[in-house]
Amino acid sequence: MHNFVFHNPTKILFGQSTLDSLGPETAAWGSKALLVYGQKSCKHNGVYDRVLQALQAAEITVVEHGGVQSNPLLSHARLGIERAKQEGIEVIVAVGGGSVLDTAKAIGAGTVVAHDVWKFFTGKKGVKGTLPVVTVPTLAASGSEMNSGMVLTNDQTLEKFGFGHRLLFPKVSILDPELTFSVPPDYTAFGAVDALSHVLEFYLTTQEPQPRVQDRLMEGLMENAISGCKRCLIDPLDYNARADLMWTSALALSGLTASGLGRVGFPMHLIEHSMSALFHVAHGAGLAVVMLGWLQAHLESHTARIAQLGRRVFKVTAGTELSAAQQTISALHDWLLAIGAPTTLEELDIAPGDIERLADNTRGLARIWRLREYTPTRVATILGFCTSNSHLAEGQEKNTLSP
Amino acid sequence: MHNFVFHNPTKILFGQSTLDSLGPETAAWGSKALLVYGQKSCKHNGVYDRVLQALQAAEITVVEHGGVQSNPLLSHARLGIERAKQEGIEVIVAVGGGSVLDTAKAIGAGTVVAHDVWKFFTGKKGVKGTLPVVTVPTLAASGSEMNSGMVLTNDQTLEKFGFGHRLLFPKVSILDPELTFSVPPDYTAFGAVDALSHVLEFYLTTQEPQPRVQDRLMEGLMENAISGCKRCLIDPLDYNARADLMWTSALALSGLTASGLGRVGFPMHLIEHSMSALFHVAHGAGLAVVMLGWLQAHLESHTARIAQLGRRVFKVTAGTELSAAQQTISALHDWLLAIGAPTTLEELDIAPGDIERLADNTRGLARIWRLREYTPTRVATILGFCTSNSHLAEGQEKNTLSP
Repeated sequence: MHNFVFHNPTKILFGQSTLDSLGPETAAWGSKALLVYGQKSCKHNGVYDRVLQALQAAEITVVEHGGVQSNPLLSHARLGIERAKQEGIEVIVAVGGGSVLDTAKAIGAGTVVAHDVWKFFTGKKGVKGTLPVVTVPTLAASGSEMNSGMVLTNDQTLEKFGFGHRLLFPKVSILDPELTFSVPPDYTAFGAVDALSHVLEFYLTTQEPQPRVQDRLMEGLMENAISGCKRCLIDPLDYNARADLMWTSALALSGLTASGLGRVGFPMHLIEHSMSALFHVAHGAGLAVVMLGWLQAHLESHTARIAQLGRRVFKVTAGTELSAAQQTISALHDWLLAIGAPTTLEELDIAPGDIERLADNTRGLARIWRLREYTPTRVATILGFCTSNSHLAEGQEKNTLSP
Repeated sequence: MHNFVFHNPTKILFGQSTLDSLGPETAAWGSKALLVYGQKSCKHNGVYDRVLQALQAAEITVVEHGGVQSNPLLSHARLGIERAKQEGIEVIVAVGGGSVLDTAKAIGAGTVVAHDVWKFFTGKKGVKGTLPVVTVPTLAASGSEMNSGMVLTNDQTLEKFGFGHRLLFPKVSILDPELTFSVPPDYTAFGAVDALSHVLEFYLTTQEPQPRVQDRLMEGLMENAISGCKRCLIDPLDYNARADLMWTSALALSGLTASGLGRVGFPMHLIEHSMSALFHVAHGAGLAVVMLGWLQAHLESHTARIAQLGRRVFKVTAGTELSAAQQTISALHDWLLAIGAPTTLEELDIAPGDIERLADNTRGLARIWRLREYTPTRVATILGFCTSNSHLAEGQEKNTLSP
């Protein structure tokens, strides 16, 4: 096992009616809050009203910063920082999906410094402090509620960058599965794909040694992202299914899964970020497509890992490692189809002719994330496995990539 | 899934040479430390010297409080509290097994109050604060390094009580698997049994609903306690095996496993505590015996859970639920034999004639832990399944217990 530091100080309140605790939990951190939220859904489903009531009941002054969009924009986070500085905000409350939570983190870190918040993302400045952040996730997906990461899209440069720092863990996160009852089928599926990908990216490392305990924990979480999603789609009001999926998503990127693996990359996210930045693809939808293509492209270099994934998570029974790995990709493909996720670039309205521009866009983040082996050429090869004419059986005839 | 709060703020530094960080990590919490440790082993294996050097290099004044014995005594913790108060101790450093860590926690909580520390254990006083505690576990077993619990034996009343409070999490724990290289085979096995039991006690709850994600996480940890122990016994210097076992033990009782299960009991621990209190049995050795007897006694009331455990963790293949559950108990029995753990009361020098006194001793803790269904009569019935003439096939003929 590689050396690691595990320190996740976020306090999680999980379950029905936990939203009732939002007032006192927030008041413990400040009496003037910036309420960050998204566009329409939280007003439609009543969550917005409940949040406002809870904060007002705890005598917290609320300043609003709504309108976060998916693939959240740097420009909008900057407006939030300006507002937080002007208003003397003491605590940030984020209610929404991963985009809202990430925007809240960016505002929290950006408010306590004089420089522009984007400098964190480009590695030009380090985080020294942050306003406390309390989150109420309404989507099981990003895990931002229990991790120290944040992702923003720079709407001037069309760069979607992610950044993490130990000071960015939310102080408190309130996870009420009932708040996800109204998530529509497509976003339920995209969220599950996101959660799965967070574990899968780490799981597919071929770096030795691979700690057995970590393998089992990751397999358990992946199994639950897959089965939990199916159960939520069959009955969107199945509390236990929503709960399993919500807790799985939170743990998936909490630091628990990556512990002891050594340096792990996030190459599927690297590629997807460019898809979102250039084509405004929903993150989970983009990941579904990239995930399949990446696996196809690495079928030969990662045969044993992919086969183990299949045997332990997808109940693959093929005898040889290669055929087990192939069956694993087929099983993942079948699951994505079953949950209504896209499996080809074309379904995302990205044409094969866009691949070069897409691959070129990954350059900046690959440098910052130190994924230097992911050159635009390599990325383009992987994206070649994501087109509709490359899929599955056909993919085996193409040249696959070395690790 | 039942509502829960998950908040584990302990910072874990895991891996080779992490002991080098002990100085600065401790200095962050205070400049005068009480060093709590056990009897001989940490001086023999060089850990004591390394700890002292690390603390002195960080200019920390060290006051020693050695001599903690296994099944640690209240009287010795009281002496530590007295010493800590007299010396104006600011931080406590614990180096050793679970007994040492628990003693350190008791001293930490007992030093900041005027009343006797035992009042925490009997529920007469609540924890309001504690001195910061830094731990360096040298045994993979109790998980005390990453949890908020502590266990002491009152050497006047012969009561071994356990108590937990959210303020009792260590601030920092340094987990270097190499520090467990010198643990002898018997204590390696007892430690693995302890870790397994921490998960198993929660896993065997029959309270609905049973969250699927929690099942998978618990099964993964149990599988690793079992396989990790075997690997450590084959090669005590197998770093990755020691690491798997150490991380498994830490996570087993970290709050992660119990999340979402609702109210879970700790009945095997209840019974074992009395065995340790009256017969000074090694905790893991006692648990091995109780575990088997408890499963035998609950074969009929917990058939489905025991069968699932077997199918998913022990590769049991029997067709019916009852035969799968029986095979599970046999497989656990075989594992305990293979690692050299005891499987009968007689091997612990406890005679069938001692059962009544043992059962009666559980009364106090059963009340405090609110395990009122565990009357002395019921405990005696379970202990009846722990004797050498009750085992396995024979056990099926006896009357087993309702949930």
